[in-house]
Amino acid sequence: MSTQINFLEQLISRIKPLDQEAMDAARSRQNTLTKPAGSMGRLEDFSVQVAGITGNPMPHIEHKVVTVMAGDHGVVAEGVSAFPSEVTPQMVFNFLQKGAAINVLSNHVGARVVIVDMGVAVPFEPHPDLIDKKIALGTNNIAQGPAMTQEQAVKAILAGAAVVEAEAVKGLDILATGDMGIGNTTPSAAIACAFTGESPAKICGRGTGVDDAGLQRKVTAVQKALDVNRPNAADGLDVLIKVGGFEIAGLAGAILAAAANGAPVVVDGFISTAAAMIAAALCPQVQEYMIAGHCSEEQGHGTMMKWLGLQPVLDLNFRLGEGTGAVLAMSLVEAGCKILTGMATFGEAGVSEKAE
Amino acid sequence: MSTQINFLEQLISRIKPLDQEAMDAARSRQNTLTKPAGSMGRLEDFSVQVAGITGNPMPHIEHKVVTVMAGDHGVVAEGVSAFPSEVTPQMVFNFLQKGAAINVLSNHVGARVVIVDMGVAVPFEPHPDLIDKKIALGTNNIAQGPAMTQEQAVKAILAGAAVVEAEAVKGLDILATGDMGIGNTTPSAAIACAFTGESPAKICGRGTGVDDAGLQRKVTAVQKALDVNRPNAADGLDVLIKVGGFEIAGLAGAILAAAANGAPVVVDGFISTAAAMIAAALCPQVQEYMIAGHCSEEQGHGTMMKWLGLQPVLDLNFRLGEGTGAVLAMSLVEAGCKILTGMATFGEAGVSEKAE
Repeated sequence: MSTQINFLEQLISRIKPLDQEAMDAARSRQNTLTKPAGSMGRLEDFSVQVAGITGNPMPHIEHKVVTVMAGDHGVVAEGVSAFPSEVTPQMVFNFLQKGAAINVLSNHVGARVVIVDMGVAVPFEPHPDLIDKKIALGTNNIAQGPAMTQEQAVKAILAGAAVVEAEAVKGLDILATGDMGIGNTTPSAAIACAFTGESPAKICGRGTGVDDAGLQRKVTAVQKALDVNRPNAADGLDVLIKVGGFEIAGLAGAILAAAANGAPVVVDGFISTAAAMIAAALCPQVQEYMIAGHCSEEQGHGTMMKWLGLQPVLDLNFRLGEGTGAVLAMSLVEAGCKILTGMATFGEAGVSEKAE
Repeated sequence: MSTQINFLEQLISRIKPLDQEAMDAARSRQNTLTKPAGSMGRLEDFSVQVAGITGNPMPHIEHKVVTVMAGDHGVVAEGVSAFPSEVTPQMVFNFLQKGAAINVLSNHVGARVVIVDMGVAVPFEPHPDLIDKKIALGTNNIAQGPAMTQEQAVKAILAGAAVVEAEAVKGLDILATGDMGIGNTTPSAAIACAFTGESPAKICGRGTGVDDAGLQRKVTAVQKALDVNRPNAADGLDVLIKVGGFEIAGLAGAILAAAANGAPVVVDGFISTAAAMIAAALCPQVQEYMIAGHCSEEQGHGTMMKWLGLQPVLDLNFRLGEGTGAVLAMSLVEAGCKILTGMATFGEAGVSEKAE
């Protein structure tokens, strides 16, 4: 076990502060391009951030990857979800057959989809497009005790990181995070409550669409999870162990590994943001590598993004997960880098500058 | 002249109510796809709207066009812009050389860029990629009298419409509007004030970046334009004649022609929205064909979109024009149609539906 923790510490130690020189150079160049300075707003900011992350003042985004991590949750026994757990593996098959929203949107923006079983509650036959990192057949019920052991938590983080390390070998310029797991807004809400100190009633939303009674059961389950487990907000690993999920752990590892490889991370909605909170608690530096893909319809997401100091790129009333908001935002980050590298300067184009 | 007005009336008469049956079919299909109903938020709405506009319950967006219309403005004599008028033709050359933001972003989303001279203040040599619809060498100073004659206004609208009719022959599934014209936030603000009744101080913003004194000159110029011309808010053509611009007229015509050809229109920022207000005043039905690409940084844009009943797709602090916000939003409308047509249904994928 101590060896595993060492690996995690090594991973974290590879995450460096952003390259200020590259950021300054990118910002300076933005101000020479044929547009009023700052008029491309957040697209300019994206390009500067990516310059700092990559250390390249003229960053180029080609290899776009979304990793969709799947897991099941013992807490569904509390009646917290509108869909049954059997939908988790069914949706994994749907991803493999390219029939899900994330497949369509990833194809639209030119991103590779990497599907990972982190802890779905049924065994899968081997499939060439399914990465098997199964830690267990779902977590324990967090309303009754810890979601997982410390060993499982560390193993799951490192497994998620290993997925991204393998993608980095193939080419990785930007990562989007995605999730699948019936019931996973419940542990995500518990994580959010643990870190922010907000009440379950303020953080819990309807997930895939529970009714009022279901929402009440969810609020109760999150409160029980907090009361029974008493997660330590100062310890990201403790929060993960007590009230997390395997796909959440895998995504936290994926985020850390992307940063360790000098790649920006577009964080998707409610579940991915919970994973980002775990990652940030383990390594505050990783926050500078994050871009918030979108503002979820799920209540509480705004509070979580605020805790992370992130401002969402898109606000399209999404509440699906899978990385759907993140891949669309990823395309806008790519566009920002193209603005930086592809536009003519005032000098090149012979355009008069602003009268002073 | 009456013949020209007849042509305009014919154009308007071709704009039909949306196809409710196609919209119902699209919404029904969205609810059978492998995601919680409604969980793709505005992407679902886009697909339903495009179904209604095209009359096709499974709409496919392939041919994306952004038309960038350029014109100059006599009102620059009032000191309302941070850049000199010579930048208008310089930026037209930049568009032709593919060095501007709109070129980079259109390339990113796979849209054709159609560049039109509606009334730039200098003559251009013929260029294969520049469509010559020049009405005059810039408008008159609206602070002193009408921007243009009635004949010029109708001719400019029809010229903008003709550009889109020609694109429709090549293939047009969706149109984005874009503008270029130093000083053109001033007539756009005057148009907004005329229709909404708001004060110039509330509507005018800094455009390409005027200082406080420039902003005050702009507010004064808009107030003078309204006082001198007294545009009739009940008559779109009168507002255009009195306080409009040639590129604004062309864009109004382009919007009407897209709708007449059964294509959705993504309206860009402040200037394009002023053109959309003219189009809507001429033909209220056209509003159903519009999608607001983004929320501009330019003060007053929100008031204009509210008047049109539009909610912006993106909010990225843009204040450039050229169609930059619209082309990025166009890609999201396309993504919505791909969700509708490309995802598996619950039945096809063997995924269990929501427990009731």
